[in-house]
Amino acid sequence: MPTQKQDEKLLMKQRSAQKALEYVKEKMILGVGSGSTVREFIKLLKKADINLSEIICIPSSFDTEAMLIEQGCQVGSLNQYPKIDLTIDGADRVDSDLNIIKGGGGAMLQEKIIAGAASEVIIIVDASKLVSTLGGSFPVPVEVIPLAKEFVKRELEALGGKVSLRKASDKLGPTVTDNGNIILDTDFKEIANPEQLEKQLNNIPGVMENGLFPKGLISRVIVAEQKEIKLLEKA
Amino acid sequence: MPTQKQDEKLLMKQRSAQKALEYVKEKMILGVGSGSTVREFIKLLKKADINLSEIICIPSSFDTEAMLIEQGCQVGSLNQYPKIDLTIDGADRVDSDLNIIKGGGGAMLQEKIIAGAASEVIIIVDASKLVSTLGGSFPVPVEVIPLAKEFVKRELEALGGKVSLRKASDKLGPTVTDNGNIILDTDFKEIANPEQLEKQLNNIPGVMENGLFPKGLISRVIVAEQKEIKLLEKA
Repeated sequence: MPTQKQDEKLLMKQRSAQKALEYVKEKMILGVGSGSTVREFIKLLKKADINLSEIICIPSSFDTEAMLIEQGCQVGSLNQYPKIDLTIDGADRVDSDLNIIKGGGGAMLQEKIIAGAASEVIIIVDASKLVSTLGGSFPVPVEVIPLAKEFVKRELEALGGKVSLRKASDKLGPTVTDNGNIILDTDFKEIANPEQLEKQLNNIPGVMENGLFPKGLISRVIVAEQKEIKLLEKA
Repeated sequence: MPTQKQDEKLLMKQRSAQKALEYVKEKMILGVGSGSTVREFIKLLKKADINLSEIICIPSSFDTEAMLIEQGCQVGSLNQYPKIDLTIDGADRVDSDLNIIKGGGGAMLQEKIIAGAASEVIIIVDASKLVSTLGGSFPVPVEVIPLAKEFVKRELEALGGKVSLRKASDKLGPTVTDNGNIILDTDFKEIANPEQLEKQLNNIPGVMENGLFPKGLISRVIVAEQKEIKLLEKA
């Protein structure tokens, strides 16, 4: 049975997702992120007063694609619609400058593609995800080609990271992403310059993507607190 | 029947590979690139006065791994030996600052990993590969996750590139790399700043790697000309 705290958190996720619906219009190409808050968004999208056949959804993961299909949404191909109007996604941590960490669900590679392809990116979170500075409370997930695991680990350590291979609980060995890669969850303590670190990570050969989404990618963040909805916007 | 010009080119490749052998010592962890000049290197390695069982070779492609095994070399795992002593590889173009373009053979992702993991990287080429400035004569191969083809193409065009999807001649559709990705061969005309462009390319979401190897990665280049061997070294 869910505890009262879990119920409250779910309610906050739903309110954040509900607010995001205001930005969704018919005829849009809509990027759809991954994770528990996005799942609430998809459920609300189905119930909303919107003709779902008038929206093309571009999913960011196997999980999201399946849920979109299940809920009767139109799933499109990013290769057919490379210009996304709006992407809605969750986040694991958001700092006061709107830099974020994603990838707790292991979907950051495709999530970053649909963020990069979108004119506008709205992040929906509950208040527990807000931090003043990234790092420490949540590691940066780094997606790595399996044959380069040890090499990349050394490089991440050289950048000051504490590296942990994400392990699967449902099969032997590591978690494997939707793209066939492994994840090195890397704790960098306090991240003074997320934009710089994101570039440094992507320039390590063997790193396919990383969970740092610098503020330049994000248009606004909808934060559900217990009593109100806060809107954080790009300066 | 090979023409005289082809024979001369092969001879130059062999002489460049022969010179590289001088840098190979027993007990080394040796990164082995890919391509026709590297194939000559592997053949010469077998004939050299070196105990092959005393060298661990880390291949950069399916093709190189197969040839190493065929020639009786010890193939090792990069995850067991993440510190490579010396990597030998070919190149498609080399500029006067030792920036290079690789990836004509489609193996640049793993090639860049074994270059990044190596204390020393020696590039072996024939003189036809030398240019004053990169770009124009040879496009930059960009390895891309298939679902992001059109999005990445747009981004490459925004950077001034003329993009061509590499097509397979042995199957329908695109060439697929050893890592399951596609290749967008991108002509940037004259590349004024290869180091900067390399970082820009790797920071496009959906780009897994690119064929620009900036000068910082390369220790020396052995260039076989018709009558002499030229050694270009890091300033």
